Amino acid sequence: MNVEWVGEALEKLRKKRPLIHNITNYVVMNTTANALLAIGASPVMAHAIEELEEMIGLADALVINIGTLDEHKIYSMLKAVEIAKELRKPVILDPVGAGATKLRTKTSLKLLELGSISVVRGNFGEIAALLGEHGKTRGVDSATYDENIAKTIAKEAAREFNTVVAVTGPVDYVGDGRRVYGVANGTPMLGRVTGTGCMVTSIIGAFLAVEKPLRATIAGLTTFEIAAEKAVEEASYPGTFHVKLYDWLYRIDVEIIKERAKVREVEP
Amino acid sequence: MNVEWVGEALEKLRKKRPLIHNITNYVVMNTTANALLAIGASPVMAHAIEELEEMIGLADALVINIGTLDEHKIYSMLKAVEIAKELRKPVILDPVGAGATKLRTKTSLKLLELGSISVVRGNFGEIAALLGEHGKTRGVDSATYDENIAKTIAKEAAREFNTVVAVTGPVDYVGDGRRVYGVANGTPMLGRVTGTGCMVTSIIGAFLAVEKPLRATIAGLTTFEIAAEKAVEEASYPGTFHVKLYDWLYRIDVEIIKERAKVREVEP
Amino acid sequence: MNVEWVGEALEKLRKKRPLIHNITNYVVMNTTANALLAIGASPVMAHAIEELEEMIGLADALVINIGTLDEHKIYSMLKAVEIAKELRKPVILDPVGAGATKLRTKTSLKLLELGSISVVRGNFGEIAALLGEHGKTRGVDSATYDENIAKTIAKEAAREFNTVVAVTGPVDYVGDGRRVYGVANGTPMLGRVTGTGCMVTSIIGAFLAVEKPLRATIAGLTTFEIAAEKAVEEASYPGTFHVKLYDWLYRIDVEIIKERAKVREVEP
Repeated sequence: MNVEWVGEALEKLRKKRPLIHNITNYVVMNTTANALLAIGASPVMAHAIEELEEMIGLADALVINIGTLDEHKIYSMLKAVEIAKELRKPVILDPVGAGATKLRTKTSLKLLELGSISVVRGNFGEIAALLGEHGKTRGVDSATYDENIAKTIAKEAAREFNTVVAVTGPVDYVGDGRRVYGVANGTPMLGRVTGTGCMVTSIIGAFLAVEKPLRATIAGLTTFEIAAEKAVEEASYPGTFHVKLYDWLYRIDVEIIKERAKVREVEP
Repeated sequence: MNVEWVGEALEKLRKKRPLIHNITNYVVMNTTANALLAIGASPVMAHAIEELEEMIGLADALVINIGTLDEHKIYSMLKAVEIAKELRKPVILDPVGAGATKLRTKTSLKLLELGSISVVRGNFGEIAALLGEHGKTRGVDSATYDENIAKTIAKEAAREFNTVVAVTGPVDYVGDGRRVYGVANGTPMLGRVTGTGCMVTSIIGAFLAVEKPLRATIAGLTTFEIAAEKAVEEASYPGTFHVKLYDWLYRIDVEIIKERAKVREVEP
Repeated sequence: MNVEWVGEALEKLRKKRPLIHNITNYVVMNTTANALLAIGASPVMAHAIEELEEMIGLADALVINIGTLDEHKIYSMLKAVEIAKELRKPVILDPVGAGATKLRTKTSLKLLELGSISVVRGNFGEIAALLGEHGKTRGVDSATYDENIAKTIAKEAAREFNTVVAVTGPVDYVGDGRRVYGVANGTPMLGRVTGTGCMVTSIIGAFLAVEKPLRATIAGLTTFEIAAEKAVEEASYPGTFHVKLYDWLYRIDVEIIKERAKVREVEP
């Protein structure tokens, strides 16, 4: 796939500096905010019902991440997705830990039923669980990943939920209901830093401010994972890698993306 | 302005190792705690009503930061400011996102109405919003900054709220109702790391344990921003810059401050 | 004490990759998750009552850390410890700030009264407070540490609460009710990064998945503190030290532990 448009999307993002509203988990609030700032977006984290409407009104996209749920947060999330629908703001959902507990699976499905999620980004086990497959997720980590099943799941989930779905893993598969694309960038070191899945979700959220869902998802995955490749070339251990990841989200550009992007349409 | 006293204030702070109680937002809890530890203070984060009185009793200053509000937290903050008033502990308020939503503007004003806030530190749009100006804030980022208006706002807000007010931006303006001072240190890279505004608020909080509000504010801004200047000389990208910022909060000393501080009284 | 088993325990941990469920404070959620990932465990943070049973069922150990308490969290913690008891999952308690406020002391004691905590890890003032000593804790920092009293407290608290107790400080003392062991590794730089106590608690939690409580505690303290020694050899300032700490939690191995471990049985 010709991916020159990915670099151009990144330039649009940086020019626009979109405001990305996150209702996310406590573990990754700081790191996703920093990832958004590094790439060139502007983060805001807010969950109080009283200010959702104004905040979503100001925002260019909404990120919903269901880690560290509780009753109040679920209510905020449902409300926020409804408001985003009304205000026609794009929404990305990260169903963290779906399949690990019924609360998480159920909450994700409720959010999807509202019918206005543009993109779902999860690992193999999470998306499998949402599809009712017997994917048993291991806490919030990637469950056992199978390349062929991953493709199928991306396709089926996209159809089932009428949205773009990204199943991330060694190769990420992105389905929009008609086609499936594979993104083969990244590094296993991403699994040694907490919240890297949540970071890429927020970054896709930032691309949703400048591209349609399918393209935003491919652009977010590619950009983030190439930044990770560059970071791991400079850092063999997770502490330093984590720091360099922000550096490379800031440094990555059209040329690096053109040189490295591994995106292709696949036969699902 | 002769600023030798800033270095001396830092030495007093390090000798005292004040306990700084923070009721702050989830995004920056970790980073403000680390900033306080690096500079030589001792942080505590606690918001349960049941322990506020004891914790504030132990603390040397209180930091209130209204990012990621909710009903319970607002109640804790109001209670905490009342307790601090009774116990005569200095309080600094960071009105994160005031102007972006009515909840944030209203909550900040309620806290100010309690009449015992020593310092307010916010960006241009936030302080403008509190003053009822038509400053439209962009989420929690600095709204469009205008040097002349910033000066005026610092002066007026200090008078209006009967407190010291710092309007931070490319040049920070600090008003105490009579005079206005400009602090011209810092680096734009601070805008690429989340919570740097919140960090400087907490550090001013630490200086409140050893200096009166006007001096504490100038000392906090100057020390933090010079540390940032040193950090950016060693790091051109935000991940590494963030790490070096803690290093330099730890390393900064009387000599570096004397050499670098750019503080002057300005005509408001 | 021959400590070859510590390195072997670390290898078992890495092979098993245990899932560690944390109900912890907002300040350290990100850093403890990263510490667990770096050492080779798999973290999950969750506190919603509705999913506690499933999550603890999936987990290999439970970590309870009482920083940033509130009513809902206390309820979750009590419930979680009860569930862990039923499901026979090991639990470690970090009584952050016990002694600083009655709420914290009381909550810790309530959790201990449930009778199924395997390990308590706290600083001198916290454990002293739990024992009803006149240890006055300074916020959440280590209160004044006295080596001889620390030994005695480790012994007495272990008997009193019928659990393994680690009193950490310049030398850590670990009591199991019969014997007391000293661990003399570490670096004062750990005191300049927030949540390092919480990190070691979580890492002991990870060792609880592969060793009995006394050994898990000694192994966790030794491994973490040697990693800190290696980190401080590469980094003289807290920002960089913090980053290198994760690197060394990832890099530490049998050989480094054998060469550096300072564990001995002491006369209490």
